[in-house]
Amino acid sequence: MSREMIELLLGHHSDRMFSSEQVSDEILDAIISSAYRGPTSINGQHISVVVVRDVARKARIADIAGGQAWIAKAPVFITLVIDFHKTRIGVEWAGKQQIIHESVEGFAVGTLDAGIALANLMVAARAQGLGIVPIGGIRKDPQAMIDLLLLPPLTFPLVGLCIGHVEKSAPRKPRLPISTFRHDEVYHTEAIADAIHGYDREMLAYWQSIGRSDGLPWSANTASFYERIYFPKTAKVARSQGFAFDE
Amino acid sequence: MSREMIELLLGHHSDRMFSSEQVSDEILDAIISSAYRGPTSINGQHISVVVVRDVARKARIADIAGGQAWIAKAPVFITLVIDFHKTRIGVEWAGKQQIIHESVEGFAVGTLDAGIALANLMVAARAQGLGIVPIGGIRKDPQAMIDLLLLPPLTFPLVGLCIGHVEKSAPRKPRLPISTFRHDEVYHTEAIADAIHGYDREMLAYWQSIGRSDGLPWSANTASFYERIYFPKTAKVARSQGFAFDE
Repeated sequence: MSREMIELLLGHHSDRMFSSEQVSDEILDAIISSAYRGPTSINGQHISVVVVRDVARKARIADIAGGQAWIAKAPVFITLVIDFHKTRIGVEWAGKQQIIHESVEGFAVGTLDAGIALANLMVAARAQGLGIVPIGGIRKDPQAMIDLLLLPPLTFPLVGLCIGHVEKSAPRKPRLPISTFRHDEVYHTEAIADAIHGYDREMLAYWQSIGRSDGLPWSANTASFYERIYFPKTAKVARSQGFAFDE
Repeated sequence: MSREMIELLLGHHSDRMFSSEQVSDEILDAIISSAYRGPTSINGQHISVVVVRDVARKARIADIAGGQAWIAKAPVFITLVIDFHKTRIGVEWAGKQQIIHESVEGFAVGTLDAGIALANLMVAARAQGLGIVPIGGIRKDPQAMIDLLLLPPLTFPLVGLCIGHVEKSAPRKPRLPISTFRHDEVYHTEAIADAIHGYDREMLAYWQSIGRSDGLPWSANTASFYERIYFPKTAKVARSQGFAFDE
């Protein structure tokens, strides 16, 4: 199994061409259990998932995320929720007052563990032969997601995932050279700039190869998002849910 | 393969009893490639890993993390680094100025994608029959990690992972009932308090079953960490690395 697992992970890519075939309850249960059994910091279990299969609700999420049609088309959409509502009930039951959600550390630990849960959902779904698309676009309007999913205070809808059978699998994007990702013993900055220049050319060739004439080099694409705060409501909505970032 | 993968994910647990056997370069390369090929938001690739096998450096990390002996004993320790240093080089190459790292959104997206990479490392390692322990304790003293690993500005050492062969596999902790994790269509708060009360009793029985007389119910354990900011240096060190959280 070991080689097969590595191949599955190396083959990661998003598939947006969902068919109309449903995902069975049994498969969906197995996928969700895979994330449920993942680790969380201090065993806090400060993650929840909201599973949406209702057609109208999926269409609404597609709108919230900026008109991503594949959200409506996928039979299942799962929202990963940072959840310090559950832990607060436990902490108060123990006679204490929860403070952690009022810190960068708290939001970070919830976000980190949501990432673990998301990865487990993705790999479990792909092992079943299903396609996936992770969706950060729900952070375009987190308040709309909170309203739609009836999320309580001290929770935050961080990221979503489309899951479904796919008609046609998509190609896999190139990556920056692994020398920019893996550093042995200490961090090495020397080769990064050259690697980016080469990768910019590789990405242009990739976009051409799949007929995407609007595709940008990695530098320009990254700049188009990161020269601003491209989902600017994240902090504001998190604060209105009870999180804080001063400490 | 599909059932086998689900079983692997369901069987997640930490193993701290590492043997002295080394992890081969080939296996380590495959594990790291599995994380390297994972997705990142906007294809930003704002994650790096630092792989430590040097004995003295591992011993130092064990100290930084509060005296976790298994870090020194594991043959490989990998630090997952949020990395907006690489993206800044790209953004500036494109003639723009990077802003994203000055926001909660930026730190969150780096943290989320580090969680995905961590999960891929864990599942790839476990598929090779290796044991793992994720280590949040490096955030006890993030500045010491930055100094030790020579991390540049706009990076942050978020979480680590011990990998190695294990002498004796550890038991798997119970979880809160899945009804507190999985919510269909909308979030359901009704059953959470009762679930926590039942789980508190289950955890006490679990600690007794493995001979840990100091084990606490989940509520009290969670309270002991979350009634304060248990890694209080996260925000301060992140700010000194160039991150900001006002927006």
